[in-house]
Amino acid sequence: MSTAPIDFYFDFSSPYGFIAAEVIEAVAERHQRQVTWRPILIGAAFKITNAQPLLGQPLKGDYALRDLARSAAYMGVPWSGLPSPFPFLATAPSRAFYWLTDRDPAAAKRLARALLRAAFVEQQDISSPAIVKTTAMTEGLDADAVGSALQDPAIKDRLRAEVDTALDAGIFGSPYFIIDGEPFWGTDRLPQMEKWLETGGW
Amino acid sequence: MSTAPIDFYFDFSSPYGFIAAEVIEAVAERHQRQVTWRPILIGAAFKITNAQPLLGQPLKGDYALRDLARSAAYMGVPWSGLPSPFPFLATAPSRAFYWLTDRDPAAAKRLARALLRAAFVEQQDISSPAIVKTTAMTEGLDADAVGSALQDPAIKDRLRAEVDTALDAGIFGSPYFIIDGEPFWGTDRLPQMEKWLETGGW
Repeated sequence: MSTAPIDFYFDFSSPYGFIAAEVIEAVAERHQRQVTWRPILIGAAFKITNAQPLLGQPLKGDYALRDLARSAAYMGVPWSGLPSPFPFLATAPSRAFYWLTDRDPAAAKRLARALLRAAFVEQQDISSPAIVKTTAMTEGLDADAVGSALQDPAIKDRLRAEVDTALDAGIFGSPYFIIDGEPFWGTDRLPQMEKWLETGGW
Repeated sequence: MSTAPIDFYFDFSSPYGFIAAEVIEAVAERHQRQVTWRPILIGAAFKITNAQPLLGQPLKGDYALRDLARSAAYMGVPWSGLPSPFPFLATAPSRAFYWLTDRDPAAAKRLARALLRAAFVEQQDISSPAIVKTTAMTEGLDADAVGSALQDPAIKDRLRAEVDTALDAGIFGSPYFIIDGEPFWGTDRLPQMEKWLETGGW
């Protein structure tokens, strides 16, 4: 059996990505796998697929709000609605993540979860560098260092490169997982992912 | 606990609708529920939501083909790919269904499943009245009576009315289920539906 990490692509502004972030580590642990978190800016993929943000669509948007609350409760994930503004651009939280993950991958995951909870449990505007810095402080990080990282050209390039790599890999949604080359889109594929991890595929 | 039937909306040209049709009766039976099958022409809803057929979309289309084969196998449903042409207009099979369901609802469900299998297991063109008639014959129905029904103005009106009713109810995808007023979109919501049926909701 493979022991390769699970690739976990998500956008910090994606509510289904938040739900996935709350549960993916437990799924991986049950099957002795690691998870590589790969935040991206999904808008770049939406341009290719000509997709519109789900929550803004007629009928589907209303359904999705109901489905998000129901799905979060079903999966035991806290949820208290969308932040405002929504949708938002996830540049700042994504840069903070990539800055930190090279220094301390576990801390970067903790920061990512804290940022996602700030957005979808506390309705904070995590597109704001100030909120990203405040959240980083609550995780014991140096706010000034985070603030500098958000403006660091190398970190900006790093995020752009990560988004390009994801586009090249065909990622078009959030959350999106790759297990041993097999793509899974959406939190609703978690049961299939569990079986795939258990059996090696079918 | 409610004993109201589960509303099952689907388009005969929807491959995920086919998968749902193969499993929904067993789900309902486990919870002592009936299922009301409601074939519709989902293109009318797509105009409202400005949606494009999934299989024709860049990146998503390729993913969906892979996901359909994987999901069918995961759920124990036969699957051998899309028919040609695809997508197709499901007017003929939908009319045949509504003609029959007023006479014999159980036979209408059997016909619907036979038509869906003709499309997605045998790759037959069920948009063709001739194929609908042939499939009806294999189900022991009178091909001439089916042929007449496909051209019957009352049946044409009936299908239009069913589509309008579905649009009024906010149905925007296939498959789409309503259980005691709660909407569930997609075969991937079946686990939540099972829990909803078991617990009465959360």
